[in-house]
Parts: sequence; C-alpha cells; structure tokens
Amino acid sequence: MSKGIQAAVVGGTGYAGGEMCRLLLNHPEVTEIVPTARGDESFERLHPNLLGSGLEFADAEDVTARADTLDVVFLCTPSGEAMRRVPKLLEAGVRVIDLSADFRFADPNAYRTAYGAEHSAPDLLSEAVYGVTEINRDRLPQARLAANPGCYVITALLGLEPLLTGGFAALDSPLHIAAVNGTTGAGNKPRTETLHAEVFGSMLPYSLQGHRHAPELEDRLSALAGGAVTVDLSTAHGNFARGIYIQSSVRIRAELREELTRELLLSRYVERYGTGSGGEYFVRINDQPRLGGLTDKDYGRYPSLAGVVGSNFCHIGLDYDDKRGIAKVVSVTDNLVKGAAGSAIQNMNVMFGLDETAGLRSYGL
Amino acid sequence: MSKGIQAAVVGGTGYAGGEMCRLLLNHPEVTEIVPTARGDESFERLHPNLLGSGLEFADAEDVTARADTLDVVFLCTPSGEAMRRVPKLLEAGVRVIDLSADFRFADPNAYRTAYGAEHSAPDLLSEAVYGVTEINRDRLPQARLAANPGCYVITALLGLEPLLTGGFAALDSPLHIAAVNGTTGAGNKPRTETLHAEVFGSMLPYSLQGHRHAPELEDRLSALAGGAVTVDLSTAHGNFARGIYIQSSVRIRAELREELTRELLLSRYVERYGTGSGGEYFVRINDQPRLGGLTDKDYGRYPSLAGVVGSNFCHIGLDYDDKRGIAKVVSVTDNLVKGAAGSAIQNMNVMFGLDETAGLRSYGL
Amino acid sequence: MSKGIQAAVVGGTGYAGGEMCRLLLNHPEVTEIVPTARGDESFERLHPNLLGSGLEFADAEDVTARADTLDVVFLCTPSGEAMRRVPKLLEAGVRVIDLSADFRFADPNAYRTAYGAEHSAPDLLSEAVYGVTEINRDRLPQARLAANPGCYVITALLGLEPLLTGGFAALDSPLHIAAVNGTTGAGNKPRTETLHAEVFGSMLPYSLQGHRHAPELEDRLSALAGGAVTVDLSTAHGNFARGIYIQSSVRIRAELREELTRELLLSRYVERYGTGSGGEYFVRINDQPRLGGLTDKDYGRYPSLAGVVGSNFCHIGLDYDDKRGIAKVVSVTDNLVKGAAGSAIQNMNVMFGLDETAGLRSYGL
Amino acid sequence: MSKGIQAAVVGGTGYAGGEMCRLLLNHPEVTEIVPTARGDESFERLHPNLLGSGLEFADAEDVTARADTLDVVFLCTPSGEAMRRVPKLLEAGVRVIDLSADFRFADPNAYRTAYGAEHSAPDLLSEAVYGVTEINRDRLPQARLAANPGCYVITALLGLEPLLTGGFAALDSPLHIAAVNGTTGAGNKPRTETLHAEVFGSMLPYSLQGHRHAPELEDRLSALAGGAVTVDLSTAHGNFARGIYIQSSVRIRAELREELTRELLLSRYVERYGTGSGGEYFVRINDQPRLGGLTDKDYGRYPSLAGVVGSNFCHIGLDYDDKRGIAKVVSVTDNLVKGAAGSAIQNMNVMFGLDETAGLRSYGL
Repeated sequence: MSKGIQAAVVGGTGYAGGEMCRLLLNHPEVTEIVPTARGDESFERLHPNLLGSGLEFADAEDVTARADTLDVVFLCTPSGEAMRRVPKLLEAGVRVIDLSADFRFADPNAYRTAYGAEHSAPDLLSEAVYGVTEINRDRLPQARLAANPGCYVITALLGLEPLLTGGFAALDSPLHIAAVNGTTGAGNKPRTETLHAEVFGSMLPYSLQGHRHAPELEDRLSALAGGAVTVDLSTAHGNFARGIYIQSSVRIRAELREELTRELLLSRYVERYGTGSGGEYFVRINDQPRLGGLTDKDYGRYPSLAGVVGSNFCHIGLDYDDKRGIAKVVSVTDNLVKGAAGSAIQNMNVMFGLDETAGLRSYGL
Repeated sequence: MSKGIQAAVVGGTGYAGGEMCRLLLNHPEVTEIVPTARGDESFERLHPNLLGSGLEFADAEDVTARADTLDVVFLCTPSGEAMRRVPKLLEAGVRVIDLSADFRFADPNAYRTAYGAEHSAPDLLSEAVYGVTEINRDRLPQARLAANPGCYVITALLGLEPLLTGGFAALDSPLHIAAVNGTTGAGNKPRTETLHAEVFGSMLPYSLQGHRHAPELEDRLSALAGGAVTVDLSTAHGNFARGIYIQSSVRIRAELREELTRELLLSRYVERYGTGSGGEYFVRINDQPRLGGLTDKDYGRYPSLAGVVGSNFCHIGLDYDDKRGIAKVVSVTDNLVKGAAGSAIQNMNVMFGLDETAGLRSYGL
Repeated sequence: MSKGIQAAVVGGTGYAGGEMCRLLLNHPEVTEIVPTARGDESFERLHPNLLGSGLEFADAEDVTARADTLDVVFLCTPSGEAMRRVPKLLEAGVRVIDLSADFRFADPNAYRTAYGAEHSAPDLLSEAVYGVTEINRDRLPQARLAANPGCYVITALLGLEPLLTGGFAALDSPLHIAAVNGTTGAGNKPRTETLHAEVFGSMLPYSLQGHRHAPELEDRLSALAGGAVTVDLSTAHGNFARGIYIQSSVRIRAELREELTRELLLSRYVERYGTGSGGEYFVRINDQPRLGGLTDKDYGRYPSLAGVVGSNFCHIGLDYDDKRGIAKVVSVTDNLVKGAAGSAIQNMNVMFGLDETAGLRSYGL
Repeated sequence: MSKGIQAAVVGGTGYAGGEMCRLLLNHPEVTEIVPTARGDESFERLHPNLLGSGLEFADAEDVTARADTLDVVFLCTPSGEAMRRVPKLLEAGVRVIDLSADFRFADPNAYRTAYGAEHSAPDLLSEAVYGVTEINRDRLPQARLAANPGCYVITALLGLEPLLTGGFAALDSPLHIAAVNGTTGAGNKPRTETLHAEVFGSMLPYSLQGHRHAPELEDRLSALAGGAVTVDLSTAHGNFARGIYIQSSVRIRAELREELTRELLLSRYVERYGTGSGGEYFVRINDQPRLGGLTDKDYGRYPSLAGVVGSNFCHIGLDYDDKRGIAKVVSVTDNLVKGAAGSAIQNMNVMFGLDETAGLRSYGL
C-alpha cells in the first residue's frame, strides 16, 4: 500500500460525515479523502473546524462512478440510500463501511419490521459484518462490507457485554437503558426544536413509545446473553453537543444476588477488556475504589462523559445495589467518534491490516 | 393577619435557602424575612441575584431564641440539625416547615436504617405532615410541622401518582427511575468535582450503589400503589444549574398491556390533575397529540425541562411502549422551586389559609 | 379600569412575543391577552413553558380590526410591519407599544440610512416616546405610542448614562462596547448556524462590520453626553439562551484621570440610580468593596449575568483602570425581559397610571 | 534520539499539567512522561480523561534531583516557583519550557512592577526565548529555556501581529481587547464562584481594574508595532470549559481609513500566515466572502470558538467598520492547547529538531 489508502465519504455534509473527514485527515496511512455533497455548500462553512484543510465536496455520483480507483467508501447517508449504492460499489471492487442502518440486520424481515420498508439488497445482509471491532475483529480482514451500529447500540453493547456473556443477568426482567445523547445526534438539519435557544439548559426526551434502535439492541444483546432479552430504551438529548451517556440497570439472577459485589463485577469487566493499553485498547474500565463514607457522593468512581469527548474511547464504570439485586453500568463514548466515525476507521484499520489504533490514539479532552 | 407573615429561613447560605428568600421577597403576604447564617458571609455576595433586596444574615441562635415573634420558620439545614431545633421552635408556638430529611419518615427505625443515626425527636415524627401539598392538602391547615421531601421524591411522586393509584403497575418488577438533576442540587460548598470546568458538557453520575432517597421513595410509592414497590433510582447531575428531569419506566400489569394506549394513560392523568388552572394548579399535563410519522422524532409531545425553570410547576408527559408493555413517564420541575422552596411556600400558604398559589404563579422561562 | 387591561400581542410566535405573554399572564391588572400568529402553530407547542395557560393564537388581521375593544397592543413584528399597522391602531384609539425598530429614530433620514428603506409613517416618528422608562418616565402617561429600544441599546444606555451625563467621558475617543447576547436574541427561525450542536460551548460573533443598532446607540448616547459620541459596538452570541452582557470601556477626560477612583464612579451611579428599592427600582448597582489582594480575582464585585435572568432588573458594576485612564462598566439584563417584554410592560404600567413595578417584581434566578 | 524524548511535567495536577500529559501521550517521539504532584492525589481521579494511561504522579523534588536523566522539563507551576527551579535544571543540562509567568519579561524591573516581587534569577531573563513559535522560531533550536506566554497573550498576539507589523494601527488610541476565556482558565482549585452552578449560563467578569497580563501584552505589541501601544484588556469567563475568544478593536491610522477594506486586511493576513497547511501551519485565516445582504447576520465569515477546541490551531477572522475606521479582529484558540500545552510542545519540537507539528496535527472538534 505504498500509495496509501484512498477514501471517499459519501454524505459529507452531516456531523458524522464531517467527523469522518476530521479523523481521516489525521490518519497516517490515508492519502486521499473525497467527501461528497448534494447541493453547493462550501465544505469549510459547514465544517469550520476543518478550516484550511483543503477538502472540497465532490459529487456523490461522480465518486461512485470512479469507485474502482478508491480503496474504501464510507457511507454516511440517510436510511435507504446505502442499500442502493452498495451493490455497485462492491462490484467495482471497493470496500464499504456503512454507517447507516441499512445493513445492520442479518434478516430482511427484521429490517422490514423496524423500518417499515422492503430491503433492496437482501442477499448482502448476511455478508455484512456487524461493525463492533471488539466483537467481530476476526471477521473484518476478509469483509467487503461492514455495517456499523449507531452510537446508542455500540455504547450499550460494550457496556453490557461482560455482564451478559458472564451470565449475571436475569433475562425475565427487561433490561433498562437510559441514554442521554449530545445534540449532534439530532443532525444539522435546521429545526426549531433543536435550536440552541430551545435545548440550552434543558433535556429533550424523544421516541419514548419505543426507539427505532431498540430492536437492533435486543437482537445483539440476546446473542450475547444466549437468550431473549427485552430492552427498555429511553432516550433524550442533553445540554451538550457531543457524547453519549448510557446508564443500564440489569436485574441480577436471583441465585447470584446475595454474593455479588461491585468488586466482583469489576473483575469480570477487567477480565474481559483488560486494563489500560493492554487488552481492548479503546475500552477502559474505571475501577477506582470507593472513597469517603457510604452516603458521601463519590463522583470519581464512575466515568465522566466529558473525559471521552474527542476520543475513540469507551469508558465503563459500574456499581451494585445489593439491597435490590440490580447492577448499574455506566458506559460513555463520543457519539461521533467511537459511536460513529472512529469505529468506522477502527474497522477500516483491521480490514486493511493496519494497526487497529492508527489515527485514533488521541485521549479525550 | 394585618401585620402579614413574619418568616425566618434558617440556613440561608445554600441554594435552597437563597431560593426561599427569593420567593418570599415576592410573596404578597410576607412582611418580614430573616435569613440566618453561620460565619460572616455577605448576603448579596452569596446571592447576587438578590442585589439590593436589603436582606442581611442574622445569627441562627438569635432567631430561634426569638421564635415566638415569628409566624413560620423554614429549615434549610444539614441532616440532623432540624431534629435538634424543632422541639424548641414548636414550643415557642412558631410553625415549622423543614426542608431537610429529618422528619420525612414516620418510623424512627426507617430513619435509622436510611441515615445510620438515632432520631432525637422520634415523638414528633408521626405529627409531621409530609409536605406534598397535592397529596396532603387536607392535613396542612392544622399542622405545626411540615416535612418536605426533596426534589427527587416530589418530582417522581407527582409523575407516578395517577399510574400507581390507578392500578396500572405490575409490582413484581422494580420501577425504574432515571433522574438527571441540576448542579444546584450538589450544593455550593466548593469541591473540585463540581467546578464548572469539570461538569460542563458532561454527565456526573453518583450513588449508583443505591441513592439515599430511594427508601423514602419506596415508602411513599408503596402507599400509593397499595403494595410493596421496589425502586431502582439512578441519579446524575447534568449540564444545567436548575431543574430536575425524571424519566420513569413502569411495567404494566400483564392483563392490561394489550389494550393500554398513550391516550388512555393521558386521560387518567388529566382525570387526576385536571387541565390548566383548573384542578391541580401546579401540575400540568402535556397531552399534545403525536405529530409526524411513527419514526419521526416529535419532541413537542413531551415536557421540556427548560419550560419549568423558575416556576413552581411540575410538567408531566408520557408514552406507552405497547410492544414491551412499559409506560414511560417524564416529570420535570425546578429542583429549587417545586423541588424545594416553592413547595415549602405552597405548604405555608395552605397552613396559613392563604390562596395556595400566592407568590408562586410565575410561569417558567 | 374595573374591567382591567385588555392587551394584544401581535407577533406572538417569537421569543419576545412569548415573553410578553408570560409576563402579562402574571400581571395583576391585565384581564385579557390575545397573541396573534400567522400560520397554524399551536401556542403551547411553540411556548411549552406556558403549558396549560389556555392562550391560543388569534389572527393578526382580526385583532387589529377590533382594536377599539382593546386597551393596548404590543407589536413584536419584523422591521417594516409596525409602521404599516400603527396609524390604524392609533386611529382606533388603542395605545401601542412597539418592540420593533420602526419608531426608534425621530428623524426619517436616520431611519433610511440605518435600514435602507423609506419610512411610511414619518409624521408619527416625533410623537413616539422612546421607551426607556428610566429616561422618559415623564412623557409616557400622555403617550399614544412608545418605541422600545432593543436589548443592546437599553442595557448599554442604562450602564453608561451616569458616566456620560456626569461628564466623565473623553468624546474624542470611540466608546467601546463589547456585547455578548443569548441565543434567544437570534430568534426561533430554524437555521443551521444557531442549532444547539453549533453554538454549544462556542462564541458566535456577527456583524463586526458595524452592527445595525450602533447608529441608534450613538444617537442616544450623544444626547446624554451633550456631544457626538462614536460607538464601536462588537456583538456575539454566547453559550446561553437568555441574558445580555455588556462591557463598556470609556476613556476618561484627561483632566479627570488622575483623581478618579472606582469609589468615585460608584458614588456617581448610586447618586443617579439610588440603592435597592429606593431610587430606580429596576436598576441595581453592585458596589461591593474589593476583597483579597490586588492580583486576586474577586469575582464578587461585578454583576453576574445569571443573577438577572428571569427578571426585569439591570445590574451594573464597574471598575477603573487608573494606569490607562479607562473606566469599565458591566451592565447585564435579561434580553427578553428588561431588554424587551419587561420594559414594554414597565412602559405600559406608567402609561396607564399603574404602579411601575406591577407584574415585574420577581428577582432573577 | 533513538531512545526518544524523556519529559517531566512539574505541576501535573492542574489543567495545564494534565493537558501536557494528554498531548505528550500522543507524541510520536516522546517515550517517557513523568508528571509530578504534591500531596497524594491519584492521577486518574484528577484527570479522568486519561483513564488507563498508566501515568502516575512522582514527587517534584525527586524528579528535579534526577533531571540529568531527562531531556526536557515542562513547568506548570504557580508564580515564583519556576525561578527557583530553573537554575538547577539548566545546570543539570535539561532543557526547560516554562508555562508560568516567571520568565516572560526580559527586564527584571518590569517583572517587579507587574508581580510585586523581586526576581530571583534575573540573569536568566535575557536568555529565555519568548515562546511564540510563529515569532521566535529561529531562536528556539539553541534555547535552553523557553518562556511561554499565557492564553490571553498568545491568542491576542497572533490575531494582531499582521495588523501591527503592517502599520495599520493608530497608536494614539488604546487598542481594545475583549476576551472571554473558558473556566479551565480559572484553575481546578475548589472555589464557590467557579462552581458549575454559579457559572452555568452566566458570564464572570474579573480584573477589570487592569488585568495582570496587560503589561506583558503591551510590551510585546509595542515591539511589533514599533511604538508604544496602550492595551485596554477586559476579561471574563464564559459558559464553556475550554477555549479563548479574543475580539480586538483597532483604530486605523487616519490616512488609511478611507481606502481600507475587509478584503485588503484579509490579504495582509494571508500574506503573513499563508493559507491552509502552507505557511504557518497552526494559524488559519477565515477569509470566507460575505454572504447575504448587508444587514443579514452572516455567522460563517468569522471563526467559531468551538472549531478550535481540542486542537493547536488559532483561527483568525476580521472585518472593517469603514464608517468608524475601526478594524475588528477575532482570534480563537483552545486555551489549554495553543494557549498552553500545545504551544509548549510546538516549542519542544523546534528545540529538538523535530517536525514542528509532531503530535499536534489533530483538527478541532
């Protein structure tokens, strides 16, 4: 790969597309970045943080027409667009990492149920590798197509995986996930409800009748748990632009409740993810011991959302309410990095045989 | 009451004490306000919003010594102080509204379990009226002592009361309450973890091992539900100074799940609380119909936290996840007003035979 | 006025219109409030803080057609609309308080220069009373038409009046005014640049080539100073929804520089505005003495923006850089209250012979 | 340098020290990082963003005792401490980059005037290279000691350099600089006034009697302008944790006023700094043309503070008020990166003959 990796970002006007460009600009092996846009927006007006980067929008159709000259295409497109583009892209021999929802279900029926539309490329669904590197690392080097989950799902999955694979959860109770997402998650389409003047100092709940990502989450968590999991996912936007905060409450199986402790749970997480740069590089466990008295608020023993912003890290912390037999897990990521563009690049790195952390090692602010 | 009401605010340096003063200054029937403080802080340096109000701190001991010249004393003191002061105050013939936790449990054993200390005035526990006006309105006119709940409990209680008294909840599952509180809830004692530079743009979870207010909540919710309720309370501070956001998930009894709808639940809430200024003045139901398609985010049909800030209102909204049989309730208040000082004044109004809304009618910002 | 005041708010969909309604709802003498809107927005979706208020939008044309049944009309309309409506409204015998820019200049040429259009009701310009109650209180009782300044101008005027009328300023240097405004000042029209995700944690400068309100400010400040004042007005939106922060730097006349002190300046302000509720009720001077050493940051001796939010107060503080002969004044208001709707009601109170503070006495949060 | 660079960060508990560690962890040539602390804080509790980094605090005295085994020491210490440590460090042969104020003045009298204390290492003052890489790049390779300016000064200097060296400024008027800094600039020492609950949604002005960095700024700007410059520096903290926003107003020399335009000024800046990655890599000019009408707010043609957060970039934009002959310059940086730790590393890179951008190329969020 002496010429480096040549990448296109289809759908470069939104926050995920802009973040793809930001991260690719710092990637040591990427030599060409082609963002695409409909319309005539100026790249630097839409992404003022990339002032002077020299990137300019190309036309999406032109880029896909010359896909054979590229190594990888990232799709940051609305629902339904990826399934139209992917067959031609794969035919042209370019690898595709799709950040939209189009290829996240293996089963076209599940797609139809969740999105209310027929899938137009159902034969590719089973080929797509679900893009959580920490879970599907082995399948990525051969993959032509990676289907990345959204920020809710990846952050919840990483936070719950050791608990579920460890057999701690009582599956007859729903698993409760309360998520607070940054407003970049609401997109940059102008809308009164997401104006600064509206959201500032507020909380903006939405989709409480059942979030569209809940079925995907149930699908993936059930696979980890070895049994059907019901997920109660509650979502809101908080007064921050970046980051996603997920607090999960998991009822523990009755026979384990009495002997379980915070320390035992933490050791399970450390066993699974390792510590620091050993083990899973991008997953870090906060296993700080409890300071102060029992009634004192010890903020330091849980992860801080601000601590992952700007980075590809997922920080995880937890506690155990032994009186009620409920484990509480907090997992936080930057919704645009580990929750979107960073995970996509992490997958790219594995797909192309690079160091998995290339271009992604920055710590959070 | 030609001379009007003369009030003291013991513990006037904190956020709740300052808010007591702010609201009392605008109360049409209150003619004297005496805040107290230890130390030599200047009132206007600590409460710059009250610049020019003319209030100055008095000494708490002096004020309690002359309690017989006052009509009401509000206690905004740390745990354990109210139980020391209340017996003497009642003896002096002054009525007391306690904003601390000292008189919230009727049972001294429950107090000991939750706070790890012996109660020093156990004989007064049963006399104290639990200060949710909407629930105990009838008992307040005769009360010498009101024991106000904190912002978590009052906001959750108002949000869940119609659901629990209506018999909708399956009590064999825990009730999940995810609360995000403003940083005024963390107090104004200097601490690195609650500096602006630390909390800005972040979420600060705490006490996930079991919040100290969970037993109080279980106590009160069980009384409403007519059976033992287990509460999974998860708490965090959000990136705002004022307001508390409570999102509750309640599993519906199996036999009701299929036929229940959002509209049915809303009608139960409207039945209980009325609409607008009819019914419970300070509780307002957002029963906006759903706009847009099923997958569209319709932010307008749930309450907005910012909409109650500065006011004594509690806004409530809800939805129903019929696939999973879970009702989701959002209740929001200003943690310092309806969650503390406003409720205290609402109680005072009823105790003194005034219009319940006197001094409290301002809408939120 | 046994039937109370009947008021219309033409242009009730924006932030200023909503705030007019919020404040009028709490006004003891106002018995009817009619907000108007084009289109079919729901009042409570646009102004969720007023949930349950019972207000609904009427049609603007219907309302102006029946103007003779009203006492006062508030105009919260875009530039150019008030000059069309006012002649008919005055003819119908209703008093008008215009919050737009249409009647702020006495001279139609000045209007043309600043707004690039011809004024359609030039004969009414000289009749309009410029709506700073603290300056034009005497002229308001007879006024049919009040022309309210915007939040920049009123906050700067109140902050600089004592300095300019006191003859301290060297008029040969420009007066520098750096203003940071809340995002409600940018309106609620959807726009990418004012989305929460864009403004959060940022500063959004605009109109640095010369803000459209600078000529109006120069006009008014020159009248106070008794000589031509040049104003360098720099404007930005900050990361808050409400409030305006104005920091003015004024070069002191050479002959006064040496003997001037912060204390002397403060005494001039106290002389002009009084202290606390004596003197100008809504203008409060922070004259806290300096604490700590000379290099220590003493935040307490200047006004805090957050301390006026939600109120009709203007807080003013200042200091003197004796080495450079420059006075620094900080004046802060809530841009939607004292900077818009609150001032309008203050004017209404005076116009109708009511207590000037009626409905406006709430302290800031 | 096969073993790489071994670095100590003396004073690793504050925000600047933490940021030094964050950036050094991602530096490709740095192989050892030793932060120091007094007391027994845990590194990861104080800097939760660096969870799992493996860094631990060493004792400052131990580290300086073995300074000969290090390549570079960064001093993030309170005023007065660097001048005690630097002589011994230089003697041990280690290079020093001082982020404190101790070595910023060449003249010990200027130090005494500004800080009210005698300098204890006056002979080293003239040797210290003032650490703005863009200005002193040539002197750094030989330097033993770099004295870095603070965030106010570096951001203002970069913003004004082309204007002053270009001879545009009328030096008989003061230059006005209005700065809004993030709260990380106030340090992490617990203090009521800087709690989140106090600063949220507010503006916190301070030191308006004359900021301690104004003399340093006058010193440096005068050198650029070739004549004595008076600076009116006004400072406040804004509602954000990171970033500094500097808006400067400069009166243009009378003979240039009429013909000057925004475009001419921009071309001067581009001439000095280049565009994009050509020219000064870390200084980027926003020369977007004006969109929309004259009275429309075109937010896109000025830099956005949020766009540099997390990066070592300084974004600069400007406009010209031709009616008043005043140039307005906006310059923004991340106060902890380009304003502190990033500049320090940029200097280190030049001192050690590395690529100047090593470890610093990340774009802002």
